[in-house]
Amino acid sequence: MAGNSFGTIFKLTSFGESHGLAIGGVIDGCPAGLEVDFDAIQFEMNRRKPGQSAIVTQRKEPDTITFLSGIFEGTTTGAPIGFIIENTNHKSKDYTHIKDKHRPSHADYTYDQKYGIRDYRGGGRSSARETAVRVAAGAIAKQLLDDLKITAYVSAVGDVKLHKKYSDLDFLEIEKNPVRCPDSELAEVMETYIKEVKKEGDTIGGVISCVIENVPYGLGEPVFDKLHAQLGKAMLSINAVKGFEFGSGFAGTKMKGSEHNDLFNANGSTKTNFSGGVQGGISNGEDIYFKVAFKPVATIMKTQEFTDKDGENLKIKGRGRHDPCVVPRAVPIVEAMAALVMVDFLLLNKLSKL
Amino acid sequence: MAGNSFGTIFKLTSFGESHGLAIGGVIDGCPAGLEVDFDAIQFEMNRRKPGQSAIVTQRKEPDTITFLSGIFEGTTTGAPIGFIIENTNHKSKDYTHIKDKHRPSHADYTYDQKYGIRDYRGGGRSSARETAVRVAAGAIAKQLLDDLKITAYVSAVGDVKLHKKYSDLDFLEIEKNPVRCPDSELAEVMETYIKEVKKEGDTIGGVISCVIENVPYGLGEPVFDKLHAQLGKAMLSINAVKGFEFGSGFAGTKMKGSEHNDLFNANGSTKTNFSGGVQGGISNGEDIYFKVAFKPVATIMKTQEFTDKDGENLKIKGRGRHDPCVVPRAVPIVEAMAALVMVDFLLLNKLSKL
Amino acid sequence: MAGNSFGTIFKLTSFGESHGLAIGGVIDGCPAGLEVDFDAIQFEMNRRKPGQSAIVTQRKEPDTITFLSGIFEGTTTGAPIGFIIENTNHKSKDYTHIKDKHRPSHADYTYDQKYGIRDYRGGGRSSARETAVRVAAGAIAKQLLDDLKITAYVSAVGDVKLHKKYSDLDFLEIEKNPVRCPDSELAEVMETYIKEVKKEGDTIGGVISCVIENVPYGLGEPVFDKLHAQLGKAMLSINAVKGFEFGSGFAGTKMKGSEHNDLFNANGSTKTNFSGGVQGGISNGEDIYFKVAFKPVATIMKTQEFTDKDGENLKIKGRGRHDPCVVPRAVPIVEAMAALVMVDFLLLNKLSKL
Amino acid sequence: MAGNSFGTIFKLTSFGESHGLAIGGVIDGCPAGLEVDFDAIQFEMNRRKPGQSAIVTQRKEPDTITFLSGIFEGTTTGAPIGFIIENTNHKSKDYTHIKDKHRPSHADYTYDQKYGIRDYRGGGRSSARETAVRVAAGAIAKQLLDDLKITAYVSAVGDVKLHKKYSDLDFLEIEKNPVRCPDSELAEVMETYIKEVKKEGDTIGGVISCVIENVPYGLGEPVFDKLHAQLGKAMLSINAVKGFEFGSGFAGTKMKGSEHNDLFNANGSTKTNFSGGVQGGISNGEDIYFKVAFKPVATIMKTQEFTDKDGENLKIKGRGRHDPCVVPRAVPIVEAMAALVMVDFLLLNKLSKL
Repeated sequence: MAGNSFGTIFKLTSFGESHGLAIGGVIDGCPAGLEVDFDAIQFEMNRRKPGQSAIVTQRKEPDTITFLSGIFEGTTTGAPIGFIIENTNHKSKDYTHIKDKHRPSHADYTYDQKYGIRDYRGGGRSSARETAVRVAAGAIAKQLLDDLKITAYVSAVGDVKLHKKYSDLDFLEIEKNPVRCPDSELAEVMETYIKEVKKEGDTIGGVISCVIENVPYGLGEPVFDKLHAQLGKAMLSINAVKGFEFGSGFAGTKMKGSEHNDLFNANGSTKTNFSGGVQGGISNGEDIYFKVAFKPVATIMKTQEFTDKDGENLKIKGRGRHDPCVVPRAVPIVEAMAALVMVDFLLLNKLSKL
Repeated sequence: MAGNSFGTIFKLTSFGESHGLAIGGVIDGCPAGLEVDFDAIQFEMNRRKPGQSAIVTQRKEPDTITFLSGIFEGTTTGAPIGFIIENTNHKSKDYTHIKDKHRPSHADYTYDQKYGIRDYRGGGRSSARETAVRVAAGAIAKQLLDDLKITAYVSAVGDVKLHKKYSDLDFLEIEKNPVRCPDSELAEVMETYIKEVKKEGDTIGGVISCVIENVPYGLGEPVFDKLHAQLGKAMLSINAVKGFEFGSGFAGTKMKGSEHNDLFNANGSTKTNFSGGVQGGISNGEDIYFKVAFKPVATIMKTQEFTDKDGENLKIKGRGRHDPCVVPRAVPIVEAMAALVMVDFLLLNKLSKL
Repeated sequence: MAGNSFGTIFKLTSFGESHGLAIGGVIDGCPAGLEVDFDAIQFEMNRRKPGQSAIVTQRKEPDTITFLSGIFEGTTTGAPIGFIIENTNHKSKDYTHIKDKHRPSHADYTYDQKYGIRDYRGGGRSSARETAVRVAAGAIAKQLLDDLKITAYVSAVGDVKLHKKYSDLDFLEIEKNPVRCPDSELAEVMETYIKEVKKEGDTIGGVISCVIENVPYGLGEPVFDKLHAQLGKAMLSINAVKGFEFGSGFAGTKMKGSEHNDLFNANGSTKTNFSGGVQGGISNGEDIYFKVAFKPVATIMKTQEFTDKDGENLKIKGRGRHDPCVVPRAVPIVEAMAALVMVDFLLLNKLSKL
Repeated sequence: MAGNSFGTIFKLTSFGESHGLAIGGVIDGCPAGLEVDFDAIQFEMNRRKPGQSAIVTQRKEPDTITFLSGIFEGTTTGAPIGFIIENTNHKSKDYTHIKDKHRPSHADYTYDQKYGIRDYRGGGRSSARETAVRVAAGAIAKQLLDDLKITAYVSAVGDVKLHKKYSDLDFLEIEKNPVRCPDSELAEVMETYIKEVKKEGDTIGGVISCVIENVPYGLGEPVFDKLHAQLGKAMLSINAVKGFEFGSGFAGTKMKGSEHNDLFNANGSTKTNFSGGVQGGISNGEDIYFKVAFKPVATIMKTQEFTDKDGENLKIKGRGRHDPCVVPRAVPIVEAMAALVMVDFLLLNKLSKL
């Protein structure tokens, strides 16, 4: 089974290359009766799209979605929702120079090895352009989540790190700065840093944190499809992601059981939340929180040596317009993937008991 | 779809509770013609089983597997491989005291909420006992991997951390000490520390590192079933896991693209391997390496306050025999889950091109 | 994906060969909270089991089910239900004579070709013995169907055919005769005929009809998983089945639209029911009815010529104890498979709209 | 899991309503390296499209496919193949009269009941227009089948029935007449009959036969995904299908084992082929043949009484342009669905043994 579908009930199937006619997707299993808020979808698309600020790629792509099916007079019908996003601003000429080359730390080489052929234009299927489809589908998923609220934000750019706990942050700040860090002072530091890195022709990694609030009990399907396992897979499937931790995460490995155990309050809530809202793979009603590690973008404006198909040593320098740091634009992608996971488990959980 | 199956082609379906008659599994999709090495399977079972050393739980469970189908005269037939492992040493009386109680940081509460009923004996389905089934299936998967070699080891116990790179370690040391740390000196420190923690009646977390060598090109199915995404899900589905990182991981977020990019050698291999053997979700022939974070075991021999179903405050102290640190016994589980992922992608990859 | 799982939410995974230690299955996705009626399960097992009358195989197999998991104190817990049925009465010596031979119209040859190996004892995985697992799982599924009632019966044995419509039959008669035909007079004719055929050492085919009453609206998932398409697959997956028709079936091909259209009554029910209770792949509240064609059993007590692996011409005559006509024992199998389909669609349909 | 995907490895996900902007599909799992024959695809589309002859609906739809992804410079890349077919000739005004009405023997009522909403224009998702997507995907599947050859033809229109065996027919005749019956004389009788029925404003059912030649050994995945079970499901999922039989089919129920058993020739082939090319759910190298029963089209140009949502009795008469007999246009659909089944099993079978 090729890997372009995600979810079991609310299932997204994605298609499209960076420089093909269009990218798109099919959502099968969206319940009928949802009055679709199209503005909310476009809002999410705009958060992801290129050209939105000085610290992201300056490409221009409107990322307008055309819905082809499954929505009638504004309401979902239960039929599969097919949609496309045209690739309007592709400049294929920018990429002919890499036709026979494999860029370092890109998927060029692995696609060639696996498939014996690759659409080299702009990374083809391996381009992060495909995440636009995830954001579109996630924006519909969000509309099925009722009170459940998913909030992602940038918590580190390189060494510049946000040390506050999420409960001490004002999430309303997130969209007020181009970095999408809820601490406005730190956001400025991050922004300045990204600009410096960009000026060097280099790129820098970062971390996105995500919090899911108002989670009902019971989401997650042990023993393999545990809530956090599926969230982890969802995040790790995003381009450039190298790690995922939830609740106490890697820091929790240094703790003792007596410190780490979340003791109950009388109402079933817990005094601490090292568990990160999940026990035994099932949501326990507490907030879910996790971190996602993004490596630096591989396309840099500095000269690098690399090897072509014939083993010849060449020098390469990125062209075109690329992100110096991927995390600001990846915030809505993290939220979208979280929304896809949560809606699927919400639906599945309706069948867990008589 | 309830979550007790793992894999698409080589698919394990697992069943069984800690204190039921037996746990077991069905492997569907194992190719016919494999001459099964039963000793190799039991070897893996023994690495996971309780009672193997002074630093693990002293329960006695032989963990002998009975194969019921799918193997004829020692060879797989292509039919589903059904197997069971009897639960011989359950002491149900040990658990009646928690029948109406929810232990902190256990899955008692979430199972009750999700299903409206739980088998409270020994954690029921949420017990780590189910991982025996994973080890059994993984041991068969390993036999299909040819040269591909999966090696996991303990790289941290609490603050005691192994700083050497995997390439500087002697993997033959791993099974020579009860901690399963390839650095024998550090292993002793870890062992002493675990014994101290045990004496306190407490537990401690840890980290398992895993290396996969001799990986063929082309494994992984973008865009959602990327090799590392599926590995991440596999690891996160193991009891007590709180995090997963591969390649440069969280440290990679602090790097610049010019540092992080893995430049090619003339033969297609790379000079560095921050990518962790995966590009664009597909193996590139370099070693795959990743880390898995385990929280401290929740059952402690210290008194804790918790809340019962009626909101009454109670004090609880663990009974029975539990692991003071889960990582030594989790090493074969990590390997087993990695093997399940790798064999599935090996099979799928045979269909990727004409 | 090997084909030993059936269903999407209520999913049965089956394993086991005719002469292995045991056959069995895992039901994943059974909702928690069902108080299991074990007698009802054994009742269905007894309807399928050998030796129940003079016109079926005289093998003795008690077909007692051991439930290993997923049921706690008589109630389903939401965990996977693992169960086994021991193969007590296998006489492997009966089958050594066919070790290197391929019996005509058996699966011996195709299993050898596909897998390069086969468990030749009693047909191995291709034996109809595996249908015992279906009946066990179906008996649990039936308990989740509320008012929905599934009734199968024998409507033809060779040329002896029941011409009455199902609405003119007394279903209480079905279990009163060994043929399981609701027309007691015709049942006697059928029984006599089967005995004659048996005396000849031959076998005869037949037809099973099935009626599903009190079906709620909305079951079935277009466009590929239509209710009747999944029912058809379920039936065609039973050993010896060669055809499936529902509603007007093949006779409907000779009708005109003006005759075939089911006009509505004021309450949404229809005056006729050529549609067979399904419109556009979705149940419309009318009775579902269908027919399943069974070929004659291939193992006969007459001498047949066949070819061994080396192309040598041999003569073979069946040994052991086989059914002269499969349909009486297949009635509970048809019901079981129908129950698996219906319960799955009942669960899925809970998610079709907000 | 909503039912708009078909296949496990070579998987089609379909979307689109009759009168939406477009219908389309995504093929995930098509191996890389296929040089696509676009003319062959359009040829199949033209066989299905309306307006091709006097005995089919006179609607005009060019049914041109736009491929959006997965094909680069004419060759499949292993990425998902997304494609759309615009709905150019929809006349929505034709359907406003049925907005609040449920047409007899249509899916209007069941869609309304299941989803609480329906796209009433031209049948929406329940329209046979969605089969264009199947034909497109099947046309690609066909190109992966090598020597395997799938041939469907009309073998009955109402009572007018072709009695010749397929081996006595000249398949080259099929496309030479508008009925797609390989017996040219009978084709004329059928054509005349369809015209008569059309003149009456009525419709008539029919039967399509299909033969699959040059089938390799080993296709099909017992015990549930038997080759013929999956073929049966594929056929039953086509609009208007009421029955499926393969090999001896319903006639085989009247046969004795001694007549029905297919004795072997020395080379492993069989003297007869009542089995229809499948033993135990696995292809045995003989021809596969089966029949598919189609009911008469429900939309007729005669006045019918029916009930609206409020229980009011109304009279309705079809408008627009509809097929008097569906089978001529359904021939390529049957072939397409067969191709999807066969290619999936061909791919899966590569993994059946070491």
